[in-house]
Amino acid sequence: MSVAKELEVANAEYAASFNKGDLQLPPKRKVAIVACMDARLDPARALGLEEGDAHVIRNAGGRAADALRSIVISQQLLGTREIVIVHHTECGMLTFTDDVIRSKIRSDLGQDADHIAFLPFGDLKQSVLDDIKVLRASPLVLDVPITGFLYEVETGKVVRVEENF
Amino acid sequence: MSVAKELEVANAEYAASFNKGDLQLPPKRKVAIVACMDARLDPARALGLEEGDAHVIRNAGGRAADALRSIVISQQLLGTREIVIVHHTECGMLTFTDDVIRSKIRSDLGQDADHIAFLPFGDLKQSVLDDIKVLRASPLVLDVPITGFLYEVETGKVVRVEENF
Repeated sequence: MSVAKELEVANAEYAASFNKGDLQLPPKRKVAIVACMDARLDPARALGLEEGDAHVIRNAGGRAADALRSIVISQQLLGTREIVIVHHTECGMLTFTDDVIRSKIRSDLGQDADHIAFLPFGDLKQSVLDDIKVLRASPLVLDVPITGFLYEVETGKVVRVEENF
Repeated sequence: MSVAKELEVANAEYAASFNKGDLQLPPKRKVAIVACMDARLDPARALGLEEGDAHVIRNAGGRAADALRSIVISQQLLGTREIVIVHHTECGMLTFTDDVIRSKIRSDLGQDADHIAFLPFGDLKQSVLDDIKVLRASPLVLDVPITGFLYEVETGKVVRVEENF
């Protein structure tokens, strides 16, 4: 059975007791979360989000630069007024460089990926601070509260990343 | 209290009973989900995903073009071998055009966003089919099973989008 089929089966159970059909389009808590795609992180469970609460934008690393299109839509059209960035310990983005993945793609797929910035990083806290900076510097992002967290995959805890440490 | 502070409080409860500290970095079910950031959709609850199971990539609309960097990392470095795309009914991406949001940004922020493709769409099923096509056409994406779903925000159900309908 493909995973997609398994997801359909699991969904039938979710839908059977679903009672949230009247939620509104704009996020109730007016927040956009930008988090890593990592399988070990479940932003909803880990941060107490219910359906309808928040936009959740996820990509490899939880990188702000790659979330800009979504954040602008979230703020301009759907009224969010706070941003929370969540990176995490043991992130895969700490394990490679653009050169490494481009070489792998060249040798395994015979393709050139030099035009893609894969946005890996060497320091976790700095990656969060860098992403806060990217958003604050963008003229397309509103001047709203931005908080950075590191999620610990070992403990399930989030730790706030302070901008002056 | 900022939403970020509320999330921290909720996280303390999650962490207090956390027992998943030994999960591995590569997703256990070898699948990458590409889903919309919409607040009403919780991919983990709706699709029966546990921590550790799947990469979850989310952006405005659940657009494949905007997920490419993450999908390549997911496949090349972390071993996923299936992709599931999830768009949904009542999506905000159906409600505007590039011209509309660019005009709003010009008038509200005094900024030019003509360089950003916001990737809205006019037809839901077609948006899923288009995104499957984008991934199948990319030489950077492996030839793996790709399934498209529409999530119904009214019922909690996912409906498979067939490629020949």
